[in-house]
Amino acid sequence: MAPPSRLLPATLQILRRRCASRFSTASSLVSPPSKAVLYDEHGAPDQVLRVADVPPVHLGDRDVCVRMLAAPINPSDINRIEGVYPIRPPLPGAVGGCEGVGQVHALGPAVTAPLSPGDWVIPSPSSFGTWQTYIVKNESVWHKVRSDVPMEYAATVTVNPLTALRMLRDFVQLNPGDAIVQNGATSIVGQCVIQLAKVHGIHTINIIRDRPGSEEAKGKLKQLGADEVFTESQLDMKNLKSLLGAFPEPALGFNCVGGNAASLVLKFLSHNPLFFRQGGTMVTYGGMSKRPVTVPTSYFIFKDISMRGFWLQKWMNSDKAEDCRTMIDYLLGLVHEGKLKYEMESIPFSEFSLALEKALGKHGSQPKQVVRF
Amino acid sequence: MAPPSRLLPATLQILRRRCASRFSTASSLVSPPSKAVLYDEHGAPDQVLRVADVPPVHLGDRDVCVRMLAAPINPSDINRIEGVYPIRPPLPGAVGGCEGVGQVHALGPAVTAPLSPGDWVIPSPSSFGTWQTYIVKNESVWHKVRSDVPMEYAATVTVNPLTALRMLRDFVQLNPGDAIVQNGATSIVGQCVIQLAKVHGIHTINIIRDRPGSEEAKGKLKQLGADEVFTESQLDMKNLKSLLGAFPEPALGFNCVGGNAASLVLKFLSHNPLFFRQGGTMVTYGGMSKRPVTVPTSYFIFKDISMRGFWLQKWMNSDKAEDCRTMIDYLLGLVHEGKLKYEMESIPFSEFSLALEKALGKHGSQPKQVVRF
Repeated sequence: MAPPSRLLPATLQILRRRCASRFSTASSLVSPPSKAVLYDEHGAPDQVLRVADVPPVHLGDRDVCVRMLAAPINPSDINRIEGVYPIRPPLPGAVGGCEGVGQVHALGPAVTAPLSPGDWVIPSPSSFGTWQTYIVKNESVWHKVRSDVPMEYAATVTVNPLTALRMLRDFVQLNPGDAIVQNGATSIVGQCVIQLAKVHGIHTINIIRDRPGSEEAKGKLKQLGADEVFTESQLDMKNLKSLLGAFPEPALGFNCVGGNAASLVLKFLSHNPLFFRQGGTMVTYGGMSKRPVTVPTSYFIFKDISMRGFWLQKWMNSDKAEDCRTMIDYLLGLVHEGKLKYEMESIPFSEFSLALEKALGKHGSQPKQVVRF
Repeated sequence: MAPPSRLLPATLQILRRRCASRFSTASSLVSPPSKAVLYDEHGAPDQVLRVADVPPVHLGDRDVCVRMLAAPINPSDINRIEGVYPIRPPLPGAVGGCEGVGQVHALGPAVTAPLSPGDWVIPSPSSFGTWQTYIVKNESVWHKVRSDVPMEYAATVTVNPLTALRMLRDFVQLNPGDAIVQNGATSIVGQCVIQLAKVHGIHTINIIRDRPGSEEAKGKLKQLGADEVFTESQLDMKNLKSLLGAFPEPALGFNCVGGNAASLVLKFLSHNPLFFRQGGTMVTYGGMSKRPVTVPTSYFIFKDISMRGFWLQKWMNSDKAEDCRTMIDYLLGLVHEGKLKYEMESIPFSEFSLALEKALGKHGSQPKQVVRF
């Protein structure tokens, strides 16, 4: 029979090892007892997740103990638990969640970062295990953020708004007066794209799916600054570009849907193959319809269309990610100025199961769920 | 009724105007009478093309009169005549053909280019109207080429070999030992890719279609230097990359087919999304199957695959095209050294109709047709 320690989930084992190894530093700081949402195997999140007690953990010299305030349930968190996301924390004993905001609770004796108890911090770049009431990690993990914005925004600023910002900056040089086109415009990334583009004087052509309430959705997006919003069925016509009116042909398009919605983005993109200008670029960052992107070969040859992909996780691993924190500060500044907003539902940790059900779509279309600890 | 001059094909009108305007330069040089393959309207090439006499034309001060030696019938020439190619000469009176080689016959009195009668020249960048026995154009059009290679190679060096060379150079930085993957490997561009890659120490993984004689085709490509050649049906398996053996994952792929053959290229491409290396790039330059390219969205997001297009015509219009002539000289040097070869059939101008039928596929699979004037 395995010795008792083998029966513990891996996270607890790690915590124990950490305590043991840190005895030698003679630090007397320990974190408060904590609660975490854990999973030991991949599967349906409402089947495999469980709330567990995590014993106190000693702080290393440069560790910071953070009391978590809020963390969202993102689709990529769900996919990690299901086991279908390419990057996942090791099992068993993985703590869910990848972003969130917390308050500095205690500092190891050798911490040099300008942090004080009470400061708001986020893990930046984002990292595994934010569904937990207290987290102890090295000071390098934590980025201090402003605390004069709603905590739900600080908790969600990385995964969606940063994706929108990077996609606007990393592929095509855009200037004020230019236009872009996107599908899935009602998603949070889509809403951020509209608002960030507007801040820079860039027009947005937006595509949404046909459904009851699509007129209301159009109104909401226009209030955020969308220049044009079309449902897919409105674009079932030959000369899409006649709909551009005075806007220039978009040099950049975003696709988070696939299938027909991706083809519509491609049809709007600029192509000017015989002159020095390059054809448009479509960036795929999601595949909500679960259908592939289908492109006639002539789009590549004669229209000079390029197709790329964006994955924030990869960007965070690149050498460009150094300015991740600068971007976060910029985005939270826009939130503070009222220039960046999106709908979320804040729900107490005690009702985690309900938040999870909503995030899994079991209660129809719902705003992003943010758990308050 | 229109005055008689209106009834002439446009080319003849242009020639007449040219003669008239050049009287003032007092140049006494005129070209010999010429024969050209013309079309006045778009349609099936064997219906709309006709051989016409072109009257002598006066040479301007900086014009060069070239006696054409040979010119190919390229698929893009066919498409121009059919009216389905995006860039076409004006009608009526368009002369067919876009590349070819000729011999300097006479020089205008103010020509400064180092050209002498008897020199071999090609229009570079390629330009409309090479199916003609004598051509008079400004000296800037003509590029002197070596005459110690078979004239069929000088006549065809631009459209296919230059496409292969640019695609190997313009998208991904390749180093000796790297690998690339391509479909349509038996096409002339495909054969050039194999040979040019070999010259630079780059391995090629080649995909051809299943057909009678595919084993013979494999042997031919291997003789040219192909490292691996697979038929599409051989690749109907899950783990394509196990076929790479010791070769590195290709960072670059070429697609001239579309459909399943394009998907196979994508499956071979490298993807290494979490590290600093970029995923592979597929360049589409043709669509022989007339089927689109279909890509799961995950290829873009998690595998970081990029998709681009190449069209030589656009490259020639770009500011990078300055070194076009240097590339031509390099390619004809390789021909001279025996390092670049491909199958062609040379056919006299008197049998143009037969050559056209063969180029149109009316006699089964045939080598590229090159007309000797």
